[in-house]
Amino acid sequence: MNRLFHVPLSPFCRKVRLVLAEKKIEVELIEERYWERAADFLRRNPAGKLPILRFEGLTLCESQAICEFLEESFPNPALMPLGPAERAEVRRLVFWFDDKFHKEVTSNLLYERVNKKITGEGYPDSRNVKAGAQAIKFHLDYLGRLLEERRWLAGDSMTLADFAAAAHLSALDYISDVDWNRNANLREWYAKIKSRPAFRSLLADQVPGFPPPPHYADLDF
Amino acid sequence: MNRLFHVPLSPFCRKVRLVLAEKKIEVELIEERYWERAADFLRRNPAGKLPILRFEGLTLCESQAICEFLEESFPNPALMPLGPAERAEVRRLVFWFDDKFHKEVTSNLLYERVNKKITGEGYPDSRNVKAGAQAIKFHLDYLGRLLEERRWLAGDSMTLADFAAAAHLSALDYISDVDWNRNANLREWYAKIKSRPAFRSLLADQVPGFPPPPHYADLDF
Repeated sequence: MNRLFHVPLSPFCRKVRLVLAEKKIEVELIEERYWERAADFLRRNPAGKLPILRFEGLTLCESQAICEFLEESFPNPALMPLGPAERAEVRRLVFWFDDKFHKEVTSNLLYERVNKKITGEGYPDSRNVKAGAQAIKFHLDYLGRLLEERRWLAGDSMTLADFAAAAHLSALDYISDVDWNRNANLREWYAKIKSRPAFRSLLADQVPGFPPPPHYADLDF
Repeated sequence: MNRLFHVPLSPFCRKVRLVLAEKKIEVELIEERYWERAADFLRRNPAGKLPILRFEGLTLCESQAICEFLEESFPNPALMPLGPAERAEVRRLVFWFDDKFHKEVTSNLLYERVNKKITGEGYPDSRNVKAGAQAIKFHLDYLGRLLEERRWLAGDSMTLADFAAAAHLSALDYISDVDWNRNANLREWYAKIKSRPAFRSLLADQVPGFPPPPHYADLDF
């Protein structure tokens, strides 16, 4: 059986889980307490990061390398357009989320409020939480503007960019840190992606000590 | 004329410059004082990051999205292998450098010593410099181990992984922060990549206030 080593609220793990589910590739999910830095874990990925995908004898690391591997190996359904310019736009947005949004928002909100407690690093730093709560507004507005002219974030079809965005936003939604009333286009986009069968496993996640709010798993949120 | 907006010592810009030069794609290099956040710059890339490539009417952002675009549009000479598993290994190493090495080493050494002064943010924080000087040892050792079994970092041929690594290491070498005596395999690898014609423009870089050491541009370093 193929295995994905992950933690439930990690946006990088969620992105890979969404791609696997959308392509109907079954894997066993194994929670890895990455902060304990077990020898087996570091042998699989010397970078000390999740997700790690064990797939048909291969050990694959780095979420975007895994997603591109899955797209190349299982091209249907396609999560990347065919033209190089359109593909560059998908990747630009993936990195927007995995780098900029991650640094300005996810780290300041999710990691402060949840990860610090789980890993025993202590209490949230309120300055970081404030900075994250401020920064997410810019990002939600930017996504709203993109969606004024596009059905999906990178264009007319659903791509890895939508999954990267949904991975971060769904993890933040688990702790009620996304104001879905800020932009109607964005809310509509999230309702669309959230109702896909691939999303179900994410909506069923439960992190001990952090019960999700009722709207988290509600498709009519 | 196609244009690359860049700053000389940025490893992300250097990676793209190496790929462009290796594929013999001529561009005009334009230095962008990104920290001044000019309106034109932010219009080109709302993420406020470099490099930005203006290419035949397209505006391309995010270094890895640009590199993949160039690889797809100009497949010769190839900087990616053909098999999905081999491509995943290239991308794993690219992200190793652009994420892990960047955070643990480049930010702590180059950004503390050089960028802070250029952008007027003040003096280096000696704790960060110490942390970077400690962390680079682990990374040099890891690369040395990879090169015990491989001619190039990701396998038998030169790929984007080598350029990502060389982009970071060359920028650090500009400020004498790489101990090339630590590993003979790594030194040999760097001598090989440094002697490529694509590297010449990087070796000619001059940052005002930071003259490079004599060994920086010396192919027999």
